[in-house]
Amino acid sequence: MNETELWRELGQQLRVDSIRSSNVTKSGHPTSSMSAADLIAVLLAKYLHYDFGSPDDPRNDHLVFSKGHASPLLYSMYKAAGAITDEELLTFRVFGSRLQGHPTPAIPWVDVATGSLGQGLPYGVGIALAGKKLDRLPYRTWVLCGDSEIAEGSVWEAFEHASFYGLDNLTAIIDVNRLGQRGETMHGWDLDSYAERARAFGWKAIEIDGHDVEAIDRAYSDAIETEGVPTVIVAKTIKGKGVKEVENKPNWHGKALDDPEQAIEELGGERNIVVEVAKPDYEGEPHVFESGPLELPTWALGEEVATRLAYGEALVALGGANGKVVVLDGEVSNSTHADLFAKAYPERYFEMFIAEQQLVAAAVGLQVRNWVPFASTFAAFFSRAYDFVRMAAISQANIRLSGSHAGVSIGEDGPSQMALEDLAMMRAVHGSTVLYPCDANQTAKLVAEMAERDGIVFLRTTRAATPVVYDADEEFPIGGARVLRDGDDVAIVAAGITLHESLKAAEQLETEGISARVIDLYSVKPVDGETLRAAAEATGGRILTVEDHWSEGGIGDAVLEALSDGEAPARVVRLAVRDLPGSGKPAELLAAAGIDAEHIVEAAQALVETPVRA
Amino acid sequence: MNETELWRELGQQLRVDSIRSSNVTKSGHPTSSMSAADLIAVLLAKYLHYDFGSPDDPRNDHLVFSKGHASPLLYSMYKAAGAITDEELLTFRVFGSRLQGHPTPAIPWVDVATGSLGQGLPYGVGIALAGKKLDRLPYRTWVLCGDSEIAEGSVWEAFEHASFYGLDNLTAIIDVNRLGQRGETMHGWDLDSYAERARAFGWKAIEIDGHDVEAIDRAYSDAIETEGVPTVIVAKTIKGKGVKEVENKPNWHGKALDDPEQAIEELGGERNIVVEVAKPDYEGEPHVFESGPLELPTWALGEEVATRLAYGEALVALGGANGKVVVLDGEVSNSTHADLFAKAYPERYFEMFIAEQQLVAAAVGLQVRNWVPFASTFAAFFSRAYDFVRMAAISQANIRLSGSHAGVSIGEDGPSQMALEDLAMMRAVHGSTVLYPCDANQTAKLVAEMAERDGIVFLRTTRAATPVVYDADEEFPIGGARVLRDGDDVAIVAAGITLHESLKAAEQLETEGISARVIDLYSVKPVDGETLRAAAEATGGRILTVEDHWSEGGIGDAVLEALSDGEAPARVVRLAVRDLPGSGKPAELLAAAGIDAEHIVEAAQALVETPVRA
Repeated sequence: MNETELWRELGQQLRVDSIRSSNVTKSGHPTSSMSAADLIAVLLAKYLHYDFGSPDDPRNDHLVFSKGHASPLLYSMYKAAGAITDEELLTFRVFGSRLQGHPTPAIPWVDVATGSLGQGLPYGVGIALAGKKLDRLPYRTWVLCGDSEIAEGSVWEAFEHASFYGLDNLTAIIDVNRLGQRGETMHGWDLDSYAERARAFGWKAIEIDGHDVEAIDRAYSDAIETEGVPTVIVAKTIKGKGVKEVENKPNWHGKALDDPEQAIEELGGERNIVVEVAKPDYEGEPHVFESGPLELPTWALGEEVATRLAYGEALVALGGANGKVVVLDGEVSNSTHADLFAKAYPERYFEMFIAEQQLVAAAVGLQVRNWVPFASTFAAFFSRAYDFVRMAAISQANIRLSGSHAGVSIGEDGPSQMALEDLAMMRAVHGSTVLYPCDANQTAKLVAEMAERDGIVFLRTTRAATPVVYDADEEFPIGGARVLRDGDDVAIVAAGITLHESLKAAEQLETEGISARVIDLYSVKPVDGETLRAAAEATGGRILTVEDHWSEGGIGDAVLEALSDGEAPARVVRLAVRDLPGSGKPAELLAAAGIDAEHIVEAAQALVETPVRA
Repeated sequence: MNETELWRELGQQLRVDSIRSSNVTKSGHPTSSMSAADLIAVLLAKYLHYDFGSPDDPRNDHLVFSKGHASPLLYSMYKAAGAITDEELLTFRVFGSRLQGHPTPAIPWVDVATGSLGQGLPYGVGIALAGKKLDRLPYRTWVLCGDSEIAEGSVWEAFEHASFYGLDNLTAIIDVNRLGQRGETMHGWDLDSYAERARAFGWKAIEIDGHDVEAIDRAYSDAIETEGVPTVIVAKTIKGKGVKEVENKPNWHGKALDDPEQAIEELGGERNIVVEVAKPDYEGEPHVFESGPLELPTWALGEEVATRLAYGEALVALGGANGKVVVLDGEVSNSTHADLFAKAYPERYFEMFIAEQQLVAAAVGLQVRNWVPFASTFAAFFSRAYDFVRMAAISQANIRLSGSHAGVSIGEDGPSQMALEDLAMMRAVHGSTVLYPCDANQTAKLVAEMAERDGIVFLRTTRAATPVVYDADEEFPIGGARVLRDGDDVAIVAAGITLHESLKAAEQLETEGISARVIDLYSVKPVDGETLRAAAEATGGRILTVEDHWSEGGIGDAVLEALSDGEAPARVVRLAVRDLPGSGKPAELLAAAGIDAEHIVEAAQALVETPVRA
């Protein structure tokens, strides 16, 4: 069998195995796999450099199936590479199998979970950035995209950034099979429409017949030789290629074939080709940036410092201590203060412009190669990337997000810039950590802890300068809380900006003979249930939560969850933002929202006067 | 003063007034306003057709400031149009003023809130769709964009959709002032880079000097005459134009000028030109689609029907009853069953392909013209558009979102397709309504109510067929809950798929001598606190919540909030998804997550055995 015959045979094998695997639970996407089978056959047999026995080899290429629903093709490819057995292939979509409906890093050769369309290319940008700018190794990143998903704006963020950063180590392959889930795509088989868009965005675009293995070979070769710009291969393909019953037919998306045996026969029967996949063919180790001892910045008690500024300064210290730390920002670094890191360590800073989806996706891509990314923007604008955060959790990615300008306390800019749902959004992410410091020293300590913390770690910072209330040598373990003031009549639970209002309120309450315990809930998730339950016991269950956030999903709910077992008595009054804010001075807006010291005093008084059950 | 002199003078007035208004609270974005002043001067004086005395006139043009931070320019334009006084202009960003930091519909001439960048053009697509396909009136939609925000993928979704739908009634104006917040944009003054991208996306692009009023005039005229495709005017401008201290200088983003008096003098002093803005110059009323009596579909008790299918069938009924109802879907209409409406009422259906940001934005744009949009996709994928949902609430928009395929119960497709954070996300939206029906008859009733409900209304539907448990003539008011089974030992609170598991569990518990109350919390927000508190009283506070959702922010938290006042005793055990799910059969995954009947029985037993405080 010569090379081209092998490719053709391998393509047929991948089709057959896609059909066979999808037949196990009678679910999956065989037809979407069949269109891309030849593209993957040539890639596997000749171009991919990957040591399946050593997935952590830093010199490995990276292959992202952005069209994650073509997982039967990916898993069939693993079989063809000798990485999994045919027996395992036939556990596709079975409960407990790592061969899930869409790829996840439960499989060692999968870098990122896909299945939410339009995400693979942005992740690929992150991986390629790591290769070119950080690792400084010549591995390539290959991303297989569907044509339907090119409608996602996130794909164009990726096109833009890959071009801006000159990522010639990135190759996108668009499987233009014309048919989406419910019918034809916007552009059908108009390959030019994709190619012209990509060229306008600064990419090299090559149009081919995606079933012509020689054309595929030339295109990959061309992509590899192209310098300075990324390449996209726009391949005309046929959905369900090779099986008449389903070939180029609508209504066959995401369905197992009716007659798999007939289809397999039509494709020439089962094969068991095993390809010797090329291993990385170069020497070299990833570049290492200097590390040193950690010396966090410190501030004096009473000093007025914004936690966002403390974030930036702590990040610089962390950058000096840990050469793995890299920073990204969405064109607001002079507000989030990521700019301090950018000035100190320009080689490890990536400007992602106003493209929050790419911002988060790049962070996910960078951590694939074990970099330690911190990505920042206004906390409100992480809502733009929520699907990427959601998927990052499924990718079991370790990323750190810093959202500044939380809440109404930002003042005059008005509600569009105020994060009021970020705690709810970030708490509802699998395995996430949600931190909300109130002063500069606390912020610095938490930033240092973030670097060591796995999963999605979110830090909420405040625009306004707030007084330092903690000594620089205090520790703030994630999962803890601090009792800043003791008291047994009522417990006020707050964090960030409202912690300071709570302290003022407690002083006022004291003059009125009410002793208020003030709890700093800097770790919103995981939450310190013990400290909260002790407060409930001590106060007869009189708990007041105060947050610069909508009343749903934030600090109030975190406290309710911790007290939900009913072991301690609890009557929880939740002060939170309930009406749509406008512009104004921070103090005016805190007052209007009913979350300033004065309102806390009133609510605490009322709560103390109310008899508590039990 | 001839026409061009007027335009130039008006441009200077808009600059002066932008500086003056930003000086009031020493905050705002005068330099970003000054770059676009000439573009807006010519638009206001010659091209905009708008009756400021009658903002609801259906024939009015629409003007969206996508660069919402240029609000000083917008408000100065209102003054120049005679719509507001100079006195009001000088309330800019003052607490209580409707002239907020970024525009919101608190102002009658603002259609949509902006300030989260990259959103104005997608909204413009929605408004232009309404004009061309629904109202069938020749009003134009003008969108002023910044150059920084073109990096947002959502802008390219808008370019793509505007072109696909042939929206020649839409004109985008890009104010290319080169400078973003923290430095130069990706493309600086490379106008071609914008124009070529737009042309590749099927738009007409015109490049001009944005301070040459005659060139601006020609460009607008050209845009209006262009048929079949939308037009973008790419205008080279200077940030801070006209004032040497700030002209084309970095670090002047979002800052009031240091010496406003000197700047005003440099611009030729204050002016008080009032322009007679052209009113709509044509006759005509919006097209009206036929309406009729509402006859909702009904199902027999015990029938197995997926709520997503009931959604689609109810939507068809609603479409017949209410000609204002329009439907959009993100390329999954055969899964969400919006396809039924598409077949029945093709003129009122818009395919938005896989572009969820544009999906939600189009809905917001359509409701600007009082259409009643229902937008659907997988519930998980609304996370892609969360920033648009957040901003829609600030726009006080009335939109209805239907998210299908909620939770682990979808089965084999795996976690990327499972919405497990949607209840948290949607509850934390200002003024939102969150509904989660368990059967087909209930779904149909809720769909009908959604059409009448203001604000952001979210419906969560289930992939699997579930038995009909309600008679077709029952009512389900928003804000209510239903006690489906009485019992005083424990109360099980569920909705959707887990309601059925709860009913099974209650039967099993009864055989063991435990009487379980089952509450259907179909209205997750607003929640029926009365029914929940009554259940707590009756059961000695033994409440079990069960949800196919992460344990944060969903049904459990809604219940805790309702019981937080401590009036009723409460020991709330929350069954929810806590570990990352994989693929499997729905029943396997419900069991693995600990939210199936068996686990409910166990948890209820344990709860009943636990002594409750008080």
